[in-house]
This record gives sequence, structure tokens and C-alpha cells, in this order.
Amino acid sequence: MSERGLLVVVSGPSGVGKGTVMKELVRKNDGIYLSVSATTREKREGEADGVNYHFMSEEDFIKTREENGFIESACFCGNYYGTPKKEVFARLDAGINVVLEIEVQGAMKVRSEYPEGVYIFMAPPSMSELRSRLENRKTESRDKVEERLKTAVWEMGVARKYNYLVINDSVVAAAERISSIITAEALRMERNFEFIKKNIAEDR
Amino acid sequence: MSERGLLVVVSGPSGVGKGTVMKELVRKNDGIYLSVSATTREKREGEADGVNYHFMSEEDFIKTREENGFIESACFCGNYYGTPKKEVFARLDAGINVVLEIEVQGAMKVRSEYPEGVYIFMAPPSMSELRSRLENRKTESRDKVEERLKTAVWEMGVARKYNYLVINDSVVAAAERISSIITAEALRMERNFEFIKKNIAEDR
Repeated sequence: MSERGLLVVVSGPSGVGKGTVMKELVRKNDGIYLSVSATTREKREGEADGVNYHFMSEEDFIKTREENGFIESACFCGNYYGTPKKEVFARLDAGINVVLEIEVQGAMKVRSEYPEGVYIFMAPPSMSELRSRLENRKTESRDKVEERLKTAVWEMGVARKYNYLVINDSVVAAAERISSIITAEALRMERNFEFIKKNIAEDR
Repeated sequence: MSERGLLVVVSGPSGVGKGTVMKELVRKNDGIYLSVSATTREKREGEADGVNYHFMSEEDFIKTREENGFIESACFCGNYYGTPKKEVFARLDAGINVVLEIEVQGAMKVRSEYPEGVYIFMAPPSMSELRSRLENRKTESRDKVEERLKTAVWEMGVARKYNYLVINDSVVAAAERISSIITAEALRMERNFEFIKKNIAEDR
């Protein structure tokens, strides 16, 4: 039907489980490509270049950004992060659905340039559930948890700018919901005018 | 999530296979109710009142219509057809998704009164495929087939007023697409503001 792939942007608070749901989504659906971000932060143990991130030097990152090579980029804690255009547009042209897992500000930047994308906000079943998920990570200090929760409240406020809300109450269910959203979006009439036109023409 | 059920309206040319797809959809999905239309036409062999149609006398039909008891009604070949409100609204309030399978003009009437519904147009893979499906029925004269095809071309033109296009290339696939549309629509942000508000409030 619609021949161009969909750009699907998924955001949500830290600790909501985006990464796990994305893995399940890609595992179950051929024809969905999870875009790999670029970063200048150091590679951690177990991470591989081109899999977890495209690891870049700060110099290369800035050069790419100046050449307009990112859809969006941002700086967190002294490191740069960005979504390379080459990860996305050639695949969309080839009919592949591309999923970006990026934070809220980056997502809103993408949306202003690419409003025909599909914007999904992933939320926890409740804020208290998010709190316990963050506390159970045990990798983060109490202050850090409080900070992340404050950010989460702000992010939930921005959520209404997204097209869809997916609650991550179960990884499998959340991935299935996103899969249904992608199926449905590809069937939207505005993406399928051509089929109608061709069919009517055929009979005339 | 969204507590109110969705009103889903499915239309499509005669011969596209709406009935078969609807049966498959309802068989596979609890929580979807296929609305039963009212008609004044005579009951055919094998049909049961309240299952295929609510069979009504012309007098009762007109009385119900005057009392504003139908969402839409129309007259075909001397018989009245209508969608009783009592089939729909109480179920939506109870969180049940209600599917109406009605023709294009009725659907557009429903849409003008209920724009928050989900409007799905079911199309054949091609007009020549529709032609052979109609011819293979063998219940209809050649003139009737030509008439139905002419109507189909007109209906395809109105299709762009629907939200989604589902091609019936396979009954199972078409039913799954409609099921995905219903899942996705229930997740649309505008139907889920309350969840967001409640969650943010919880943390303040």
C-alpha cells in the first residue's frame, strides 16, 4: 500500500523501559529498523560501534552537524548525541519503517521538520511505578532518582504533543501496541490516495 | 486506557467482502460488537431476528425514525434500513467498541453527527477483482453487475473522506488490519489526556 516507510518516534521518561520494548518490537517485526544514534560519549563495556551507538569523536560530530548531517542533536552531561540523517531517509525511501528512540526535546525538533512522522509517548502505569523502577536499578543515587522523576513529570506534560500514548505495563503488550500503531498508520487514507486514484482510473 | 468504546464504521463496495471480514473480526476479538441494523424488508430463509437484522414493520420503523431512534436510515429498493441508536450508544458508554457495517451515504451521515468515530473504507485489490467477485456470485444479472461496478467507482471516490483504507486481499489479513486500527485508535493521545493528567497530578 503506502510505499514510503513510516518514521516512528518513541519517547518516554528515563526508566519507563523504552529500550526493552524496542528490542521486542524489532524482534517480532521484520520491516522495522531501529535507528542507531551517534554519540561522542565513551563506549561502555559490552557496547559495539554501529549497534548501540555510532561512536564518534567530538570533532567528527561537530563537522557532521555543521554539514547538516543530523535530524536532531543535543548535548547531555558534556556528551553529544544525534540522529544521523543517513540512518533514516534512505530507509524510508526504500519502504522500511524506521523507529527513533529519542528524548522529548529531540522528538519535538524532529516533529517540526517531519510532521508526517508518528509520535508515540511511552508512559509508566503510574508515577509511583516509575519511581520503584528507577530505585530498583540501584545504579543511581537518591538525588538522581528525584531529578529523573522531576524530569518525568515535565515530560508527561509534553506528552500531549505526541500522537499516541502507550503504557508500558508489559513489554510484550507495549510492543504489540506499537506494532498495531505502525500497521494502522500505514493504512491511513492520506497515505493511500494513490491506490484509490489508480483503481478508479482503471475502471474508466 | 480510554474508557469509552470506539464507534467504528466500515463501508465498501458491494462484493468487497465486508460481511465475511466482519465475522472474522468479531470471532477473533472480544470486546468488539457488530451492530445489528433494522430493516423493513422481509426475512429471508436462514435469517434470524436480532442476528442478521432487527426486522420491523414499516409502521414501527417510521415511528422509531420520527422519535429520532436511528443514527442514520435510508431507503433501498422500497425497503427501509437504519442503525438503531440503542444498538450503539449504551455499548460505547460501557467501553465496548461498536462496529457498524453501513453503506457510504449512511456512513457520511454518521460522521457528520459523530466525527470522533473511526471511518474505514474497505476496497477490493482492484476493480477487475471486484468485477470477477460480483460475476462469480452468479445471483445477479449482467446489468446488475454493471450497475454495482458503477456505484463502486463512485464509492471509491468518496473513500478519501474515510480515515483508513483496508484492502481486502485476504479475509484474515483484512480483519487483522481492522483490529490493529481499533487498537491504535484507542491509544490516540486525544483519547488519553485523562491518564496523563491523573499521573502528573499524582506526583505533585
